[in-house]
Amino acid sequence: MPSFQPRFADWEARIRDSFSRQPFMTHLGASMTEAEPGRVVLEAPFKPELTQQHGFFHAGVSASLADSAGGYAGFSLFPENSTVLTVEFKINLLTPAQGEFLRAVGQVIKSGRTLTVCNLEVYGVTGSEAVLCAAGQQTVMCLTGKPDSIR
Amino acid sequence: MPSFQPRFADWEARIRDSFSRQPFMTHLGASMTEAEPGRVVLEAPFKPELTQQHGFFHAGVSASLADSAGGYAGFSLFPENSTVLTVEFKINLLTPAQGEFLRAVGQVIKSGRTLTVCNLEVYGVTGSEAVLCAAGQQTVMCLTGKPDSIR
Amino acid sequence: MPSFQPRFADWEARIRDSFSRQPFMTHLGASMTEAEPGRVVLEAPFKPELTQQHGFFHAGVSASLADSAGGYAGFSLFPENSTVLTVEFKINLLTPAQGEFLRAVGQVIKSGRTLTVCNLEVYGVTGSEAVLCAAGQQTVMCLTGKPDSIR
Amino acid sequence: MPSFQPRFADWEARIRDSFSRQPFMTHLGASMTEAEPGRVVLEAPFKPELTQQHGFFHAGVSASLADSAGGYAGFSLFPENSTVLTVEFKINLLTPAQGEFLRAVGQVIKSGRTLTVCNLEVYGVTGSEAVLCAAGQQTVMCLTGKPDSIR
Repeated sequence: MPSFQPRFADWEARIRDSFSRQPFMTHLGASMTEAEPGRVVLEAPFKPELTQQHGFFHAGVSASLADSAGGYAGFSLFPENSTVLTVEFKINLLTPAQGEFLRAVGQVIKSGRTLTVCNLEVYGVTGSEAVLCAAGQQTVMCLTGKPDSIR
Repeated sequence: MPSFQPRFADWEARIRDSFSRQPFMTHLGASMTEAEPGRVVLEAPFKPELTQQHGFFHAGVSASLADSAGGYAGFSLFPENSTVLTVEFKINLLTPAQGEFLRAVGQVIKSGRTLTVCNLEVYGVTGSEAVLCAAGQQTVMCLTGKPDSIR
Repeated sequence: MPSFQPRFADWEARIRDSFSRQPFMTHLGASMTEAEPGRVVLEAPFKPELTQQHGFFHAGVSASLADSAGGYAGFSLFPENSTVLTVEFKINLLTPAQGEFLRAVGQVIKSGRTLTVCNLEVYGVTGSEAVLCAAGQQTVMCLTGKPDSIR
Repeated sequence: MPSFQPRFADWEARIRDSFSRQPFMTHLGASMTEAEPGRVVLEAPFKPELTQQHGFFHAGVSASLADSAGGYAGFSLFPENSTVLTVEFKINLLTPAQGEFLRAVGQVIKSGRTLTVCNLEVYGVTGSEAVLCAAGQQTVMCLTGKPDSIR
């Protein structure tokens, strides 16, 4: 993967602050466990309320974590006074999502002025074993002149 | 849209029962408000815990509802003694998702023996106004010989 | 589908001229058979050189026609002095693509200032019968201040 | 990337033979330049008839090469007496596709009994420089009991 240079010194505080203002991530029990320029990892422990009818994590949970991980990976490279919107994403559910927690990794593969494209991966983690359970690709958009913190 | 014939007489009881066993849908506050062969509608009222940092419904909520709506639209056409898995989906977030509730519509466009393809739409509804806020396409898989209700 | 107002009076001449300057469409034998604001139809007759190993149209042919149909559907709504780029598309191959010709329909579902989202359909047509053989969704981008005709 | 074991001894002859029976690949001027279990590379030199209105490779060319590269990457792992069908793919066009030739890489990321998921990359290559110009993800299907060579 390429390495990326942030265009805003406080990129990490900005994405962590924004993440903390996403009530839906709290509702999922997710936390941001890693943040680098162009790469973000989110994790959410297993809870019964995150499951589907077979007891696995619901595909929507994998998708939601992957979407936020990719969004913040993209946002980590945006200039000051900007915010991020997801344009679209696609995700393949490769195997039932199970384990002690899910780990979603968003990784920028192309950083453009307006559009950024991310690779998305979701792992089901149990002990030291991480199984790739979903993989996707996402397009996010940089909105300049709009702060992230005011609606 | 084409009209579809169910291959299992109790298709509606089956999908409503399965939906009721998806704890994540309960966690989102979603209910199944319409069910026809090949078409399912899910709705979830606005709750602060479903939002992202700008106060709109999180893209993951739209995606989760759309995924389940499409999955059950597909499942409505499956034969007896089978269950459904999402293979993949793609979703475009067209405009911020807001309103009194979200309405996700899953509509089968191709019903195959193994694979079924669905059109996905999510609307933000306020009063009598419904704004299309997300659109997608999904592939689901029929697993035969596996009941839906036992893990 | 919504109806759309073009923002440039010569929208039809512009997209037909641009289409005629796509050598790859000529290589496929494609022609633009319908054009409305926000909707474009392309058709390509069967030729052995468009096939895959089973004698059907290659998925890449369906995808190429769908991509151009959607791109020109989007371009039909763009302002003067702009051009169009495909950001991404997703396509499901529903059934083998066969017939006397393929008909690809691009239909705008969301027209934005920067991004436009299109629905894509490809039909295999024989006589009066048209079979939906591929369906997809596409994001295209409006580049303003760049004429379409100069590289 | 994981390494994969072929389930059919003559996997390479089978995919090279199948590729040679895709007239559309010949029409594009494509050749298979690398083949490993689970990974296939196709290349197509620049020709004016592969371009769009700005003189770059048409997005459909990138998509077609990527689709075939992924399809044969998947097929390389299928058992004897089977063939391959593309279920769907999604591709982002990251930057204009230009150079002496395009190189499309299909890499299996999940090999299942029925469905296989591939990562797709397309590079524009000039001399020793290869620029990633498209990235995607694809689902292909194994059809058993159907030989690849008879329609």
